[in-house]
Amino acid sequence: MSEETTKEGRGPSRRGFLRNSALAGAGLVAGAGAARAEGPDPLITEVQDWASSFGDAVDAAPYGMPIRFESHVTRRNVEWLTESPVSSINFTPIHALEGTITPQGCAFERHHSGAIELSKQDYRLMINGLVDRPLVFTYEDLTRFPRHVTTAFCECAANGGMEWGGAQLEGCQYTQGMIHNMEYTGVMLRDLLAEAGVQTEGKWVYVEGADASSNGRSIPMEKALDDVMVAFFANGEALRKEHGYPVRLVVPGWEGNMWVKWLRRIGVYDRAVESREETSKYTDLMPDGRARKWTWVMDAKSVITSPSPQVPIRHGKGPLVISGLAWSGNGAINRVDVSLDGGRNWQTARISGDAKKKALTRFHLDIDWDGSELFLQSRAVDETGYVQPTKQALREIRGLNNVYHNNGIQTWWVKADGEVENVEIA
Amino acid sequence: MSEETTKEGRGPSRRGFLRNSALAGAGLVAGAGAARAEGPDPLITEVQDWASSFGDAVDAAPYGMPIRFESHVTRRNVEWLTESPVSSINFTPIHALEGTITPQGCAFERHHSGAIELSKQDYRLMINGLVDRPLVFTYEDLTRFPRHVTTAFCECAANGGMEWGGAQLEGCQYTQGMIHNMEYTGVMLRDLLAEAGVQTEGKWVYVEGADASSNGRSIPMEKALDDVMVAFFANGEALRKEHGYPVRLVVPGWEGNMWVKWLRRIGVYDRAVESREETSKYTDLMPDGRARKWTWVMDAKSVITSPSPQVPIRHGKGPLVISGLAWSGNGAINRVDVSLDGGRNWQTARISGDAKKKALTRFHLDIDWDGSELFLQSRAVDETGYVQPTKQALREIRGLNNVYHNNGIQTWWVKADGEVENVEIA
Repeated sequence: MSEETTKEGRGPSRRGFLRNSALAGAGLVAGAGAARAEGPDPLITEVQDWASSFGDAVDAAPYGMPIRFESHVTRRNVEWLTESPVSSINFTPIHALEGTITPQGCAFERHHSGAIELSKQDYRLMINGLVDRPLVFTYEDLTRFPRHVTTAFCECAANGGMEWGGAQLEGCQYTQGMIHNMEYTGVMLRDLLAEAGVQTEGKWVYVEGADASSNGRSIPMEKALDDVMVAFFANGEALRKEHGYPVRLVVPGWEGNMWVKWLRRIGVYDRAVESREETSKYTDLMPDGRARKWTWVMDAKSVITSPSPQVPIRHGKGPLVISGLAWSGNGAINRVDVSLDGGRNWQTARISGDAKKKALTRFHLDIDWDGSELFLQSRAVDETGYVQPTKQALREIRGLNNVYHNNGIQTWWVKADGEVENVEIA
Repeated sequence: MSEETTKEGRGPSRRGFLRNSALAGAGLVAGAGAARAEGPDPLITEVQDWASSFGDAVDAAPYGMPIRFESHVTRRNVEWLTESPVSSINFTPIHALEGTITPQGCAFERHHSGAIELSKQDYRLMINGLVDRPLVFTYEDLTRFPRHVTTAFCECAANGGMEWGGAQLEGCQYTQGMIHNMEYTGVMLRDLLAEAGVQTEGKWVYVEGADASSNGRSIPMEKALDDVMVAFFANGEALRKEHGYPVRLVVPGWEGNMWVKWLRRIGVYDRAVESREETSKYTDLMPDGRARKWTWVMDAKSVITSPSPQVPIRHGKGPLVISGLAWSGNGAINRVDVSLDGGRNWQTARISGDAKKKALTRFHLDIDWDGSELFLQSRAVDETGYVQPTKQALREIRGLNNVYHNNGIQTWWVKADGEVENVEIA
């Protein structure tokens, strides 16, 4: 058995690749018998500038930003995809992130009339309609209700929507990056509604924002009284402006459009409002011309973030970490399978860290890449037993008329040179 | 029973304070019979500028920063506390944060010779000493080992150290802010050590950084093979420069000084190195002149973050949310008690969100404040049954000679006017 194929512990042996790459250059491998063709590596054998002088005093950076070497890890948009910069989408660089938390600074955001600047002093939230006591809350009022903490993914209903027409955009960021995952702190909508006193006929709430678009959406009372949060904090700190400062709605597991930012009003009604954002938009046009509506839940989905079109394999064959994200609007992820051959054979990936309900879940699979081409796929299974479908299976039912709720299996073609392309296979 | 004291659901009723404050001004309270002395509130009844024009196009902010209204939420230092800006401490604004995650941008950091700028290309990690195969890893090499995800608090051993001499610094940030909590992704130190092959005599590792201070610390092999991580990502993205980009050590539950940044070398030895940072520093001088050493674990602790000296109560009596953090280096937090009267009576707080092992845990208690002075305390109990002690109990054993490992109960004196002061009570 050669060094390269020896298996140790939970993954392929790294010893082989280390002997053939880094160690060879380092010249420090006293016991390993490696080639020393390149001589000592001064980066480890010699004193470097950064070890013989002072670094920056951090007092100068009371709020830090990413180091300049990571300046490529940013939100990006696709200019032709939306109407104008004030009604646009910025995609999370999910190909470059790890773990499960999305930093606010580079988290996907969609705005319909720009990101408004609204101070806590000017903030008001109204509850009206079919309630015993119409109420107006200041920001401070909201902070006096019991606080809760929850982690949830927020995914645009159109995430992956370009894929209805087959593999389109290069880059995991553009294909599946309309998603983020943060830890929220706020108050439960049910506690605010209890304060107002929902009348028996009140079966829906209509939520709208303080921006010009208002982006109103109807939510059935059952969901409103379940896990919907009126949030002030994300990942520990105040919401960023583009995420709805000072207050946004968090609707765990449901499409991002309902997570109204700069939340201004909650109307209680006996029926849905049937607003623009839930009729002409955010409904799924079926092949027969009818529209599926109230498709709120984001079904189980997954994507391999690395390797992916923006993250080719540069290190050649040998140990390869496959990393990806899985999530379900119906609960926790139970299992993620990965295929190297376009769905013919599957192996179960490791879940790394927590698999929280309605939150992004990280999976990893360690393989020993032999340098041949791969057709990488991942397939999520959630706690309800739902299995992420193929794109073809979705198209057979839903056709090609709509852009929403494409949770089909994504395929990355890894070529022998390590480059990765977004493809679809029969 | 008056409106103000009616209890509903899980906390004090908000109805009373709402009728008397926000609603009164809003003039929209059709059914509530509130006073309308101030007339309608134009902030909710009239169309505002932000609802009738476009906000910012977010394309201009590929990596966002906090909104300007939150510019006070930053790391801060205490100039006289440390020698110079290149050997300094910056405290987390824990008084202004919520939930459990600390954003990297404002997360506590301690540097001994400044924050160095080290690229992934220039990065090397050596494992040498009592190993079969001395190794040098490039950054890319490390990314080929199996990845793990874990959330952990990092607390300076000196956090709260000023409190040995009694209540000193005003502000929760300065008193207890040498702590942060992030989700890390990286590889397990045990996997790297297995690659090098630890020899039978190898009982300790010595870890050091690439900066001029090197900040070397000894870690017993048992811990090194348990949960120590060589991390590249924090809260989903690359480590920030001041947190050790591109690679730092994560030593869950153990004092922050051991979480070596810009990790350069792991030496395997048969004994501890007894370096400067574990002899003249980071040992606890006892009353008899001897020093406790190897006091690595951060024992269970808690602090109320709001109200606190930087967060006075501005809203007057009525519903008050008490929010705080608890943590233990020995495992998960089982319970947090809160006292309003300086430790005579205790009530159990709610744990909000997860109570993860060796990670910050958020607790809340909702009270109906009658406007009289409070002596607020919190007391953490971890899964081992350990109960956070009083400062007095700690002093009886450890005296006043040292600055480390003060996990005593903190007292905030809330005055009738809502101002809060750091005090100590007999």
